[in-house]
Amino acid sequence: MSLRVTVLGAGSWGTTFGKILADGGADVTMWARRAELAREIDEAGRNSQYLSGINLPGGMRATPDLTRAVSGSEQIYVSVPSSSARDTLKQIRPLIAQSDAPIISLMKGVEKKTGLRMSEVMADALRCDPARIAVVSGPNLALEIAKEQPTAAVVASVSGATAEAVARASSNPYFRSFVGTDVIGAEFGGVLKNLIALAIGIVDGVGHGENTKASIITRGLVEITDFAVAHGAQPETLQGLAGLGDLIATCQSPLSRNNTAGRLLGQGYALPDVVSRMEQTAEGISSVAPILELARAQGIEMPIVQQVKMVLDGTMDPRDIAPHLTTDDDTPQEETQYGNSDRGGALRRAFQRARDLFGDGGRGSRRH
Amino acid sequence: MSLRVTVLGAGSWGTTFGKILADGGADVTMWARRAELAREIDEAGRNSQYLSGINLPGGMRATPDLTRAVSGSEQIYVSVPSSSARDTLKQIRPLIAQSDAPIISLMKGVEKKTGLRMSEVMADALRCDPARIAVVSGPNLALEIAKEQPTAAVVASVSGATAEAVARASSNPYFRSFVGTDVIGAEFGGVLKNLIALAIGIVDGVGHGENTKASIITRGLVEITDFAVAHGAQPETLQGLAGLGDLIATCQSPLSRNNTAGRLLGQGYALPDVVSRMEQTAEGISSVAPILELARAQGIEMPIVQQVKMVLDGTMDPRDIAPHLTTDDDTPQEETQYGNSDRGGALRRAFQRARDLFGDGGRGSRRH
Repeated sequence: MSLRVTVLGAGSWGTTFGKILADGGADVTMWARRAELAREIDEAGRNSQYLSGINLPGGMRATPDLTRAVSGSEQIYVSVPSSSARDTLKQIRPLIAQSDAPIISLMKGVEKKTGLRMSEVMADALRCDPARIAVVSGPNLALEIAKEQPTAAVVASVSGATAEAVARASSNPYFRSFVGTDVIGAEFGGVLKNLIALAIGIVDGVGHGENTKASIITRGLVEITDFAVAHGAQPETLQGLAGLGDLIATCQSPLSRNNTAGRLLGQGYALPDVVSRMEQTAEGISSVAPILELARAQGIEMPIVQQVKMVLDGTMDPRDIAPHLTTDDDTPQEETQYGNSDRGGALRRAFQRARDLFGDGGRGSRRH
Repeated sequence: MSLRVTVLGAGSWGTTFGKILADGGADVTMWARRAELAREIDEAGRNSQYLSGINLPGGMRATPDLTRAVSGSEQIYVSVPSSSARDTLKQIRPLIAQSDAPIISLMKGVEKKTGLRMSEVMADALRCDPARIAVVSGPNLALEIAKEQPTAAVVASVSGATAEAVARASSNPYFRSFVGTDVIGAEFGGVLKNLIALAIGIVDGVGHGENTKASIITRGLVEITDFAVAHGAQPETLQGLAGLGDLIATCQSPLSRNNTAGRLLGQGYALPDVVSRMEQTAEGISSVAPILELARAQGIEMPIVQQVKMVLDGTMDPRDIAPHLTTDDDTPQEETQYGNSDRGGALRRAFQRARDLFGDGGRGSRRH
């Protein structure tokens, strides 16, 4: 008998992940909020809005009925917008109370109201044992994976058994899941990479080439690793698929909002113009200032993120952004210095600070 | 008084590095083997063959006279082809016997006859204290740096004082040098990245996108880090500018020979056709088999490099290359497993084996 799994959310990533699971041999039930989307997936084997041109495998069904979607499921994957995650989770809480099915976050980002990481929102909303929770992270340009281009990801859970069960289900000939226990690192990677994607966008907009980008990705990885390690992550996680892998894919993707925002800045647009040109907010923009404030308080140097802030503030010409601060002293430094200060709650404090600064924690630009 | 430095070799990288040093405030004397090239640099401030369109700074002079170039120099940078490094170094040995000027390798690769790393060739040919020797490595697409696009690099020497002196000279507003003591790691990075660049070229030729490439770069970095650490390198070095940084820039560069060779393989050309199409050998090709043999003997898993070998051998369809081996068992693995076996001489043994296999250690393809 095949494993019965559920994916909540039928956007491009949720639908792609449903395909990954079905191609790995599972019986997959997708839950789509909108009945017409559920019907298209269920009857036509297509999701034309979010995965145009992709044929979905036969093992994928879909329903708009949350109770039916979750009932009898052996693994529940969650891929809804971070803003509605808590609501959706609260609805399934009574439905999963009698089961011990793992609950897996496919989401990146933090809950704006609380600054909590998605796995923390899960534990909070479901009031369940953290050992039931896992997160999947890595380079995830959905359409490329939906085209079955080979990809690797990491499944992290404080429970090794949970991570392994999820990784087995989330593997097929074109998608390989590795396992880890560092949930904090896996989730920090998905959030902090946006800051470096902004920097890469800026130098791309300026017209610099691969050499500058390679330098900034490498040095930027050190910065976000320092920051994450200071808050409880393992450095190896940031240097793996959830950190480096996601960072490289994001920096190369013309579809990344943070990359796009950076490119516009690099071309010389001021921040208010960038914000008004873009339909959706680039999440990285609002987290730059609060992350830097936390870093400074903890003695962590983040020269690239600091330069991004100067460009956002209009106090630095984007042409001058570099893998180092040109204004610092010229004493040669060593390459690595992973921090080791107080742990926990860093993203929450950063995003609470973002909310204080910007009103809604999402749009970082209204003070201009 | 400005620091007096010498660069031996006026190819694209040597000339670019001379410009880096001159823009950092040094008085630079380039040595070019060919008198007409020396004259063009010295009189016209140009190197039209290797750095077309770049104006060289006023502080750069050039001579074809090795004795004049080295005389009174306070730092000597070497950027000649690895095949002629030993000859050039032997010629300067009597000239530098009375000085304690640092000697710095700008070269990547190994000496084919002996399999020695370039810093080992230096110590051997100059019979000097290793504390005088440093290596500079990192992402180095010469033309982009010559256009003053911001870049970072690492200067490694067993002597911290030497590394710091060289890093100070090798820094300017667009080029930042970090320091380290891991010479082995810095040099391994520059050699092993070619294996992963081959893999990236293959998936590029097949038509896969950024997601697959990000996965392979991330997992490939784990493989080459495992290998290098087993032979005395520090993992941090491979994750820094000399490893990851160089790897990303190489994988994105359409000019990289290894990348080009991989792309042709990915498009379906057999190895003999690739070799005959390319003017110069892609160094990675000949090192695949011997590196894998060493890895196997030491229990290091290199699934990506192994798949590259299968593509080279014609036993794997390039479309099937993935960030993991699809033929291995499906037990989920952890992301990292830096090896820790016997140290030293690995590249030497690998390249000696390459010579045994392929006759000259350079062209790996004649058996087809």
